[in-house]
Amino acid sequence: MKILVVGAHGTIGSGVINELADRHEMITAGRTSGDVTVDLTDVDSIRAMYQKVGKVDAVIACTGHSKWALVTDMTAEDYQFGLEDKLMGQVNLVLEGIDYLNDGGSFTLTSGVTDHVPVPMGSSASMVACALSGFVMSAATELPRGIRLNLVSPGVIEEAMDKYGAFFRGHQPVPASRAALGYAMSVESKQTGQTFRIV
Amino acid sequence: MKILVVGAHGTIGSGVINELADRHEMITAGRTSGDVTVDLTDVDSIRAMYQKVGKVDAVIACTGHSKWALVTDMTAEDYQFGLEDKLMGQVNLVLEGIDYLNDGGSFTLTSGVTDHVPVPMGSSASMVACALSGFVMSAATELPRGIRLNLVSPGVIEEAMDKYGAFFRGHQPVPASRAALGYAMSVESKQTGQTFRIV
Ligand SMILES: NC(=O)c1ccc[n+]([C@@H]2O[C@H](COP(=O)([O-])OP(=O)(O)OC[C@H]3O[C@@H](n4cnc5c(N)ncnc54)[C@H](OP(=O)(O)O)[C@@H]3O)[C@@H](O)[C@H]2O)c1
Ligand SMILES: NC(=O)c1ccc[n+]([C@@H]2O[C@H](COP(=O)([O-])OP(=O)(O)OC[C@H]3O[C@@H](n4cnc5c(N)ncnc54)[C@H](OP(=O)(O)O)[C@@H]3O)[C@@H](O)[C@H]2O)c1
Repeated sequence: MKILVVGAHGTIGSGVINELADRHEMITAGRTSGDVTVDLTDVDSIRAMYQKVGKVDAVIACTGHSKWALVTDMTAEDYQFGLEDKLMGQVNLVLEGIDYLNDGGSFTLTSGVTDHVPVPMGSSASMVACALSGFVMSAATELPRGIRLNLVSPGVIEEAMDKYGAFFRGHQPVPASRAALGYAMSVESKQTGQTFRIV
Repeated sequence: MKILVVGAHGTIGSGVINELADRHEMITAGRTSGDVTVDLTDVDSIRAMYQKVGKVDAVIACTGHSKWALVTDMTAEDYQFGLEDKLMGQVNLVLEGIDYLNDGGSFTLTSGVTDHVPVPMGSSASMVACALSGFVMSAATELPRGIRLNLVSPGVIEEAMDKYGAFFRGHQPVPASRAALGYAMSVESKQTGQTFRIV
């Protein structure tokens, strides 16, 4: 299969590339790195990427950030950041990509364990992760030509514990190589509308 | 208790008023109706409402709309509408209201059955309903002074079947009076961070 991975050089994306590159043709993308650059917060940039890349069998997103702070320190704008970056960035990758996906192809997006665990300073992360679950569950039922849509929800990644460890005390870190299995399951199965929790 | 209900004259809000008015002091609010008017999509308007109303023991929101269309007809702007109106409208009611809530007081927001059932043309409704679940689950853990935060997720309302019936074939309609029990449970219990599903 021909697989486009946005965020391919990130912590999770690197694991995804390792998992899939032996048996598929990979196209890497990122904001500043990869075969093609793209800014998912800019719809025109997403369109330009798809025009460059052309038809593919799978699109994977391992991108997206949200603001981490106590709810009592969060503003409307702080929540808006996560909604634009991690939520709508990935949603727009789907909306703009439908015409570029071959029949039966798949989209695989990324949320995280905050979809069911409330962690300190994580109210925006939880909002966005759950929003992605809802979108994927519902939008998957309406995609044309057998196109599938799934979500991978990994626990905190072992290789990122220096960055995120303080928010995830008590959590069992997940190696990026194990999180990557969720993306393989989405791309190389017939499942759709699912959230694969990798904890 | 002194209870502020935003959307008090809507289908669900009317049921909430009926359920609670006998045993509490109710303050009604809406965009064009009620003791006080407010537009939840405008943070300044929310602030002005709280300044007028002063301290309360509970704040209930029965408001919010999202765009209903097939995912293949939805644009980024269409999703943004639901995020601003139903999601951030209610979230801003919480953020701006914390200082106006008495100790142990409660916020109760409204989502809907699209948080776990994918219905036709409901990808934005599901996105927003799930985002509210995630926010409530996580933000509830960080509110000060014993302030609580819950969500009511009602099935399609019997009194609104003429408007929403086409999206909810196969669903058992819920009378507004029954949905209203979820709000009573939130206000008059000690629970927090919960989604009360009324189906
Ligand atoms: N790390 C964890 O512990 C963990 C756990 C669960 C879930 N997650 C989620 O998994 C996703 C990836 O996390 P990560 O830690 O692997 O991220 P990361 O290491 O920060 O890498 C992010 C990647 O995405 C690209 N990127 C960032 N913003 C972009 C944009 N606007 N448009 C296009 N590409 C963009 C970056 O491109 P450049 O390389 O060019 O900068 C980079 O390749 C996020 O949604 C995160 O919340 C992470
Ligand atoms: N109806 C259903 O079957 C159903 C089922 C499950 C969940 N829900 C959810 O329950 C909530 C209420 O639904 P409903 O059917 O009861 O609504 P509704 O009958 O349309 O009533 C909405 C109420 O909210 C007020 N309102 C609307 N926009 C507002 C804004 N921007 N700021 C402040 N107030 C605003 C309206 O004020 P005015 O009176 O001044 O116009 C009205 O009182 C929505 O989130 C809906 O998605 C509805």
